Amino acid sequence: MSAGSDESTVDLEAMGAAARSASRKLATTPTAVKDEALRAISRALRQAEGQILAANAADVDEARRSDLAPALVDRLLLTPARLEALASDVERVATLPDPVGERFDEGVLPNGLPVHRRRVPLGVVAAIYEARPNVTVDVAALCLKTGNATILRGGKETMRSNATLGEVVCGALEGSGLPREAVQVLADPGRELVRRLLRLERFVDVVIPRGGEALHRFCRENATIPVISGGIGVCHLYVDATADLERARAIVHNAKVQRPSVCNALDTLLVERRMAERLLPSVGADLAASGVELRADGEGLAILHAAGVPAIPAGDGDFGTEFLALVLSLRVVDGLDEALEHIHRHGSGHSEAILTEDAAASARFVDEVDAAAVMVNASTRFNDGGQLGLGAEVAVSTQKIHARGPMALRELTTYKWVVGAPPEPGSTRYFVRE
Amino acid sequence: MSAGSDESTVDLEAMGAAARSASRKLATTPTAVKDEALRAISRALRQAEGQILAANAADVDEARRSDLAPALVDRLLLTPARLEALASDVERVATLPDPVGERFDEGVLPNGLPVHRRRVPLGVVAAIYEARPNVTVDVAALCLKTGNATILRGGKETMRSNATLGEVVCGALEGSGLPREAVQVLADPGRELVRRLLRLERFVDVVIPRGGEALHRFCRENATIPVISGGIGVCHLYVDATADLERARAIVHNAKVQRPSVCNALDTLLVERRMAERLLPSVGADLAASGVELRADGEGLAILHAAGVPAIPAGDGDFGTEFLALVLSLRVVDGLDEALEHIHRHGSGHSEAILTEDAAASARFVDEVDAAAVMVNASTRFNDGGQLGLGAEVAVSTQKIHARGPMALRELTTYKWVVGAPPEPGSTRYFVRE
Repeated sequence: MSAGSDESTVDLEAMGAAARSASRKLATTPTAVKDEALRAISRALRQAEGQILAANAADVDEARRSDLAPALVDRLLLTPARLEALASDVERVATLPDPVGERFDEGVLPNGLPVHRRRVPLGVVAAIYEARPNVTVDVAALCLKTGNATILRGGKETMRSNATLGEVVCGALEGSGLPREAVQVLADPGRELVRRLLRLERFVDVVIPRGGEALHRFCRENATIPVISGGIGVCHLYVDATADLERARAIVHNAKVQRPSVCNALDTLLVERRMAERLLPSVGADLAASGVELRADGEGLAILHAAGVPAIPAGDGDFGTEFLALVLSLRVVDGLDEALEHIHRHGSGHSEAILTEDAAASARFVDEVDAAAVMVNASTRFNDGGQLGLGAEVAVSTQKIHARGPMALRELTTYKWVVGAPPEPGSTRYFVRE
Repeated sequence: MSAGSDESTVDLEAMGAAARSASRKLATTPTAVKDEALRAISRALRQAEGQILAANAADVDEARRSDLAPALVDRLLLTPARLEALASDVERVATLPDPVGERFDEGVLPNGLPVHRRRVPLGVVAAIYEARPNVTVDVAALCLKTGNATILRGGKETMRSNATLGEVVCGALEGSGLPREAVQVLADPGRELVRRLLRLERFVDVVIPRGGEALHRFCRENATIPVISGGIGVCHLYVDATADLERARAIVHNAKVQRPSVCNALDTLLVERRMAERLLPSVGADLAASGVELRADGEGLAILHAAGVPAIPAGDGDFGTEFLALVLSLRVVDGLDEALEHIHRHGSGHSEAILTEDAAASARFVDEVDAAAVMVNASTRFNDGGQLGLGAEVAVSTQKIHARGPMALRELTTYKWVVGAPPEPGSTRYFVRE
């Protein structure tokens, strides 16, 4: 794709400069003002219901005309109930504690110099995402709460919805005395523009992609700005021979069935050989009854078929795959070592669980599995900002730096070192390095 | 440059796989074992003095023959004293607290589910650096302490020194029962190899460049792995009209002269107009006496010349420049607003200082300047891992994510969420998401 082929109407540099300028204002905006702006956004979303749903209906119409799969059409659809949920989510962000300004690692050096680290906004956050228009408002709200300006670039299927949501948000910002450029929606379908956004390092501090593996890869390949990558969850659950059978049934079912389309849903069940005969018939029957397609290794298949549970042989591609659907791969393993090795080879560093009554096995699993979240006797579905008590999240990171797991409010901040202290009456202290 | 042109002897994939494997071992290695390995490395460096200095002499000879500037030759030179300093630095790392295993944010969710974040190693760290061979050992030691495996790629001028240092380190690791692949030195001059290393995301978790702006840019442009970029310090010091004159002289002199070749040395002095007549003659005379070349704006130049202090007019390129030498640019400003605006436009987000007796000015400066470290009545030279009480550092970050300022031990770690708890006798608890 040639540079400049499709971005004639968008001045990305100007957007970046405006975002940077807005971020300076937001960085010193008091919490109460940010919270009032969030409530104003919430009100504005409710008041603009007709306008927002009309823009969304146009997106949905076009998606249907272009034969988008019904499940994808559903993802971009806004209804009065979904819009109300979105508005109340924004309201709730206003009630969460503001991490900006927190001091930590306070101390006095041997020479008397006081130092601390102070939590501050990241600055300008660019979010690049697909499908769901609610991401536009979610990310804008969480970034506003943490004093960050945002540049939001959603999927081309929701350009009209996103543009309208952006206008509503910006109007509310202005009404609250904050710069409307604090939230800028890039409602332009050009991909070359995304490529340029990923290199706008003078103005953008971090890029957060939300979407499939291809989007994350595109961002990592093209960005010169730091990217918080993640979202791909190839999640395993290992049941050892000591686990409680009935409770294991409940957790496996929860991890796979409660919401199969999300990244923390279970993909592969690993069962210790000594447990397989006991566990698989009942777990398999539960899952099959909930419409789950089971893809098992030879041993697992034999046990399932002997119990009359429908299952098909797993192919190589069924391990290390994020299904995002009612499909579960299943393998019988010798024990913990083989389970750990399988997870090391096939996991994506997202959410991994063990069910066991053996404290030593639990400790080894927690120590040795390298993932954002490691669960003991708990469903993989708990790797989620809301569930973990963080209030909300903009994404789930599977990379190692900055944040791992939910990108919630604190993860949308950085810190500055403050070295020295404001002058106090009568104590004039100056510090040189010896 | 065509792919594969110069890496025929290096199997980078195999190095990556070996590093990943070693990192799994290191992640669960107890602190005492890591510390003993560090002491073994220190002893081995002392024992191998002859071999190390011989390899270094060959590097130095070649550098001299190829007419490398004497200052650069000095940077790559190892002497018995420098090697001893290196060995005792490694010994000192063994005495620092190990951040791995720390728990934080411990809590119990409303449903009874216990959660915490546990500090763990990053995994595999690739360091790409220039000139100084001591970086090879420094980075290896700090990464070993934090349970990270390393791939180290130094400058081509020090390939022999680095290879020999690497052998010595690896021998000591093996003698301590740790995998020698925990530290791998890439002693191959090919740049294409670096490009491939920057994309080895299957095996490498983070890239830390140390060197000039060109190296950092090369890494950001070519990496698909997260990069901790930084090191470029365009540092300002603003003296307002309330500052104590004598102490200001001492701090300005310290910030500029103590070690001008480092990133936290002062580059630009901003002086409030009402202070300029009082401050500049004495400060300028101090600096000129220490061999500092002063490059001043019109107003500053007039004051300096009137006081008989040598100075030349500043050009546009003298603001926003990291001098790394005895050169200081100087500008007279109206007051705090103009100083803040200058720093916003020209700073690199590294170290910025204010000298003032006005608490309100100090507070605004700390709040509004966006930099890794903001100093009040203290020299910019304090933005340093050792000075800030962190023990040591592998680099100084000027980006926003993960770490800001010194990359010390804690900054070489990440965390994992631990959800649920090891089974306790008599309390079988399992958690599904509601």
